[in-house]
Amino acid sequence: MNKERITKVLDQARDMDALLLSDPYAIYYLIGKKIAPGERFLGLLLQKDKAPVLFLNILFPFDEMEGLKIVSYSDTDELTAVLQPHFDPSWILGVDKTLAARFLLPIIKNKLVKDCVLGSRAVDKVRAVKDESEKELMRKASKINDEAMAIFKTLIRDGISEKEVAAQLPAIYKRLGADDNSFDAIIAFGKNAADPHHMPDDTIVKQGDAVLFDVGCLYKGYCSDMTRTFFYKKEPDEAQKKIYSLVKNANEEAEKMIKAGVKLCDIDKKARDIITEGGYGPYFTHRLGHFIGIEVHEYGDVSSSFNDLTQAGNTFSIEPGIYYPEILGCRIEDLVLVTEDGVEVLNSYPHDIEIIGL
Amino acid sequence: MNKERITKVLDQARDMDALLLSDPYAIYYLIGKKIAPGERFLGLLLQKDKAPVLFLNILFPFDEMEGLKIVSYSDTDELTAVLQPHFDPSWILGVDKTLAARFLLPIIKNKLVKDCVLGSRAVDKVRAVKDESEKELMRKASKINDEAMAIFKTLIRDGISEKEVAAQLPAIYKRLGADDNSFDAIIAFGKNAADPHHMPDDTIVKQGDAVLFDVGCLYKGYCSDMTRTFFYKKEPDEAQKKIYSLVKNANEEAEKMIKAGVKLCDIDKKARDIITEGGYGPYFTHRLGHFIGIEVHEYGDVSSSFNDLTQAGNTFSIEPGIYYPEILGCRIEDLVLVTEDGVEVLNSYPHDIEIIGL
Repeated sequence: MNKERITKVLDQARDMDALLLSDPYAIYYLIGKKIAPGERFLGLLLQKDKAPVLFLNILFPFDEMEGLKIVSYSDTDELTAVLQPHFDPSWILGVDKTLAARFLLPIIKNKLVKDCVLGSRAVDKVRAVKDESEKELMRKASKINDEAMAIFKTLIRDGISEKEVAAQLPAIYKRLGADDNSFDAIIAFGKNAADPHHMPDDTIVKQGDAVLFDVGCLYKGYCSDMTRTFFYKKEPDEAQKKIYSLVKNANEEAEKMIKAGVKLCDIDKKARDIITEGGYGPYFTHRLGHFIGIEVHEYGDVSSSFNDLTQAGNTFSIEPGIYYPEILGCRIEDLVLVTEDGVEVLNSYPHDIEIIGL
Repeated sequence: MNKERITKVLDQARDMDALLLSDPYAIYYLIGKKIAPGERFLGLLLQKDKAPVLFLNILFPFDEMEGLKIVSYSDTDELTAVLQPHFDPSWILGVDKTLAARFLLPIIKNKLVKDCVLGSRAVDKVRAVKDESEKELMRKASKINDEAMAIFKTLIRDGISEKEVAAQLPAIYKRLGADDNSFDAIIAFGKNAADPHHMPDDTIVKQGDAVLFDVGCLYKGYCSDMTRTFFYKKEPDEAQKKIYSLVKNANEEAEKMIKAGVKLCDIDKKARDIITEGGYGPYFTHRLGHFIGIEVHEYGDVSSSFNDLTQAGNTFSIEPGIYYPEILGCRIEDLVLVTEDGVEVLNSYPHDIEIIGL
């Protein structure tokens, strides 16, 4: 159990009487144990000056943990009856954003508490600022991702499909010391690269294709996430080069301006303005980046609607893209770590145009 | 879009003015398209005598579909503003059980409707009764699983770890015509088999170990799920044989009594009584089974607290187990399809004691 993190979270939750976390990642962050409860209820109840309480189905074996109270229940118990003795009808209860309606509505309708409010922001804010041990893991996860990208590009050869490439990634990550993919890899050939969320299919690579890899690994619980767009066996034409260079420029100029105390929306604007001035604004259809850590997408955006200031210890992606099916779909993404006076770009794989398969 | 299924769902939702589904599986079931929205909102709004409305982030490309109204929004839009024009403050709105608090609480607090109630039961009840096309897919998925089990057992050899075995499963399923695992396989050697939710780790198999496979594949969107417990290179001793035979007997007697119109809790009781009379009641720590279809765990239990009657077209698991670390952890699981006058056991892999690795 990480008491320091729990204290920080409760400090952020001062407008609530208690906080009920159900998100396995938030619970992992605070107690150091990953539990995948499936459709069953898992809850960690936090209150100031009281021991945290973990509600856990007896199906999941759990060793005692100092300072943590365990409340076991079985599949035949009714949830509200399990929770009620530990709740107070006068409470403003913070619940986390992922709490499912099947758990939340009974709490509300049975009046176990006075009111429920979204409370996961309290954990999110603490998670957004990585401590030293987390920074090390984020660096290492991205270092493995850089090494992996150099191998992934060699997998592309005549006759291979996106799916066949995707199937080989987990083993390569494991060989490099990671535990698994951190998300389902996006591997996109040709026009598929113009769909930012394309899932690998049976498309076969052909000469002249863009080859987009949006990939990441999980290293000791922490995620990497990087995108590079290569060209298969043929130099890109002028129109493609223009798009590529706008994306590269947007990525690098955005990264350059990062340090503690910058508005996240301004970083988005920097990249977006470059692409808009280049004439491709409408084809950059998503936010510039997302926070990342033990989950690939954590609370915090690099987008026009997110006005928070960066803080030292934030880790997020910078991933401008242009998706123009008739010419090119292209994205260049790095992870960055904000420092007091600047930025540490966690990926070092080059941004330059690279022709592969030669 | 499957109008017949939508009509059936609305028929089950007569006590609600509208139904807002956010579960990608429910949406897939009704419109035939799988969308994985990540942390973004995805919603299908159903109302009697009105076209269904799909709320979808513009990031996800979606072709027009006859009879379906699409409402696109972007990452910078506020959700309640997107929903409000399509909602009515007088409504009793059904929401599904998985709707996340970050979507549900704003709907409640901004009074977009008069009241929210759990409404996914309406879809669940329709999903629980498989139609003919679904039955065929369930049969085929389990047939592949039978074939796969015969291969999986040959993977076990001296020096191999649970994780190494697990890594080989997806490719074998694909070779047999399935798309993927339907869930993270449980492969457990020796004492690990006594943890019903064990995740494959670096444990190496050794002579005399129980070798438990709880595995399933996904075939055209439908799941199989089967468990067998083998013995590695050594005949089980008498105490192990007793446990094994109780579990086998519990499985087979429970399966025998299945037909349309039986109380699901009575099926659980049949198996549980056999194990209890054998002296191992406290070591059978979970429900006898769960419903299954496009998800591995669907609404519907074979447990002491589930009093519904079986209906022709139900598909669920029968999976008694005894988890006694000092002697044996053992589970035998089949999928079954309820018919009017009996049961079709979808798995044919034998239940007998089998010594492998010889």
